[in-house]
Amino acid sequence: MHSLAIPPLDRSLETELRHKIDNKTKPPGSLGRLEDLALQIGLVRGSLTPTLNQPHIVVFAGDHGAARAGISAFPQEVTWQMVENFLAGGAAINVFARANGITLTVVDAGVAHDFGVRSNLVDAKVGAGGTASYLDGAAMTAAQRDTAMARGADIVAKLAATGCEVIGFGEMGIGNTASAALLTHCLTDAPLDDCVGRGTGLDDTGLARKKVLLRQALSRYAGSRHDALAVLAQFGGFEVAMMTGAMLAAARQRMLVLVDGFICGAAALVAARLQPAFLDYAAFCHASAEAGHRSQLAALNVAPLMSLDLRLGEGTGAALAWPLVRAAGAFLNEMASFESANVSDKL
Amino acid sequence: MHSLAIPPLDRSLETELRHKIDNKTKPPGSLGRLEDLALQIGLVRGSLTPTLNQPHIVVFAGDHGAARAGISAFPQEVTWQMVENFLAGGAAINVFARANGITLTVVDAGVAHDFGVRSNLVDAKVGAGGTASYLDGAAMTAAQRDTAMARGADIVAKLAATGCEVIGFGEMGIGNTASAALLTHCLTDAPLDDCVGRGTGLDDTGLARKKVLLRQALSRYAGSRHDALAVLAQFGGFEVAMMTGAMLAAARQRMLVLVDGFICGAAALVAARLQPAFLDYAAFCHASAEAGHRSQLAALNVAPLMSLDLRLGEGTGAALAWPLVRAAGAFLNEMASFESANVSDKL
Repeated sequence: MHSLAIPPLDRSLETELRHKIDNKTKPPGSLGRLEDLALQIGLVRGSLTPTLNQPHIVVFAGDHGAARAGISAFPQEVTWQMVENFLAGGAAINVFARANGITLTVVDAGVAHDFGVRSNLVDAKVGAGGTASYLDGAAMTAAQRDTAMARGADIVAKLAATGCEVIGFGEMGIGNTASAALLTHCLTDAPLDDCVGRGTGLDDTGLARKKVLLRQALSRYAGSRHDALAVLAQFGGFEVAMMTGAMLAAARQRMLVLVDGFICGAAALVAARLQPAFLDYAAFCHASAEAGHRSQLAALNVAPLMSLDLRLGEGTGAALAWPLVRAAGAFLNEMASFESANVSDKL
Repeated sequence: MHSLAIPPLDRSLETELRHKIDNKTKPPGSLGRLEDLALQIGLVRGSLTPTLNQPHIVVFAGDHGAARAGISAFPQEVTWQMVENFLAGGAAINVFARANGITLTVVDAGVAHDFGVRSNLVDAKVGAGGTASYLDGAAMTAAQRDTAMARGADIVAKLAATGCEVIGFGEMGIGNTASAALLTHCLTDAPLDDCVGRGTGLDDTGLARKKVLLRQALSRYAGSRHDALAVLAQFGGFEVAMMTGAMLAAARQRMLVLVDGFICGAAALVAARLQPAFLDYAAFCHASAEAGHRSQLAALNVAPLMSLDLRLGEGTGAALAWPLVRAAGAFLNEMASFESANVSDKL
C-alpha cells in the first residue's frame, strides 16, 4: 500500500491562481503567508474556486514499550486515560475542534489497554500491548508496520468517501517524543541532542536519562539510518506508523494535510522520505516548543504557519491553524477584484 | 472624555486562574501562548469562567491631507472606494469576519467623499475633506481630535450596551502608514528610518520620497514629541484618533481589545502613553510586515500572537487572530481537569 506513488502536484493552474490572488482588492502580497496558502489550496484541490469541505482531525493513540523504561514525565497509563478523555470530550483537542468546526475521530492504533467495544473509538489496534521496547530490539515487525500504515490509509479513504477534503492528524502516546526524536535523528542527520526534548515536562535529570537511553537504542541498531521504512519499524510507534500511512493516503486523495507538531512532524518526515511529493500537499501548522521540531522543519525546508510555544500534541496545533487555512481559501473564493469592486489600482 | 482613567487590571483572581489552567489535562505550560491569553481573558473579564460574547470589529476610515503630496502607492480615492467595498462585503476584512463569526461595523471618521445616507455606514465624520496636510501644519485641531476620540468612545459604549465583550479595530486611509510612522517615531524615539515602510507598496524611489516628506513634517513641528495628545493632533488621522478613543473606552468597559497591525498599533501606542493600564486589556494580534511595527512592539514590550507577513490593515490581523483568542477562552472553560477526567498526574 505505502509503495503507491504520490503524483507531483499539478501546477497547471498556477498562473491563473496567482493572477486571481494578485487582483483581489488589496496591495499585492499584503496577505503574506495566506497568499502562499491560497495558492497551495488551489493547486492541491485543482481548482480556481477550491473547497475544503468537512475538515477532520484523526487522533491516533498508541503505547510505546520503551515508555516503561522511564523516558517520560508521565506514567504509561496516561495514554489510555487520555483516550477516555478524548471520548468524553474533555481534552484540548476536543475543545479546539468544537470551537473551530472540525470533526474528530479517535483511533486506537495500539494502546496497552482493553477499551472494549466503544461507539466513538475506531479499533485499529495493531498490537494489544503497544510496541516492543526499541531498547531491546525493533519496536515492531515489518508486518506490523505495514498493517499500521494500511489501516491509517483505510481510515482516510473512508473519510474521503464521505466528502472530507482537508485533514489534520494528532496523536497520543506516552513516550512518543522519544520515538519521534529517534526518527528525526535518523532521517535528518541532526545530532541526537538536538532532537531530544523534555516531552511532557522532564527535568534536567530526566532529560539526561532520556538521552542515555536513546543513545543505547541507536547503538543496538546496525541497519541504515536513512531507510525510512526500516527506522519506522525500529523506533516508531503504532500511532506514528498509522499516521504515516494516513498522511500519504490523504495526499493521494488530494486532500490538504494539516501537520501538527513534533510527533506528527516525524510521521510527515517519514512520509516525505518515502514520497517527496507528499510535501506539496502538506501545510505545517506550528513550530512546536519541543526541541527537535526545529530539526524536522529545517530538514524539510518548510516554514510553519504559527509559533505559539505549543507542545501538547493531540493535533491541537492543526486544529488551531485550521481557521487560517479556511480564511486563505475564503479570500480566494470570496474577495472582490479591483475590477469587480471598481477600486483604482496602483498609481 | 479621554482623560478618564483606566483602572489597573484587577489581579485578585490570578492565583485561582493559574491553578485552573495548570490543572487542565495537559502538561503544565504545554499550551504556550494560549495559557497567557487564557489568564489575560480571565483577568480582563474578572471571572474564572470568562465569556467573550459578540466579537466585533470596527473599521474606521479617514483621509489624510498629506496623501495628496505623494506618500502612497495608491491614489486617495481608494479610501472611499474601499469603504464601498466594505459596505458591499467584498474586502478581506469582510471575508475574514464572516469566516470567523465576527460582526463588522464600518465608520466614516473623515473620508474625503460624500457617501450620502447609508444604512450600514456609521457617519462619524469629523472633517468632510479629511485631515489637513501635516506637511504645512497640524493635521487636525485639538477640538477635532477630541471630537474624534469622543465619537470612537461613543461607538464602543453602544456596542458594549448590546453585549459585545471583545472588540478589534481596523482602519482604511490612503497615507496612514505615513501618519503612523510619525506617531511611532515621536512616541518611541525609534529613528524615523526604522518607522517608515513601503505601505501599500512603494518602490525605492517612492520610499525615499516618503522619508523626505516625513522629515519635512517633523522639522516644522516645534512642540514636544512625547506629548501623545499633541502629536496625535499634529500627525494623526481622524481614523487613528477615533480608534484611540475607542480603544481606551473598550478597556474601560473591560472588553478584551484585539490590536491589529501598524496603524492600529499607532493608536494603541497613543492609548498606552495616555493610559499605561490600557495594555493589560490589549492582545496584539500579529507582527506586520510594515517596517515600523517592530519599533512599536519593542517600545510597548509586547509579543504579537502571529507572524504571517500581513500588511493589509482593515483589522484583518485581528479577525484572523480571533479564533486563537476564542480557543484560549474555550480551553479555560471547557477542558477537563486531571481530577475530573481521572487522568494520572506527573510521576
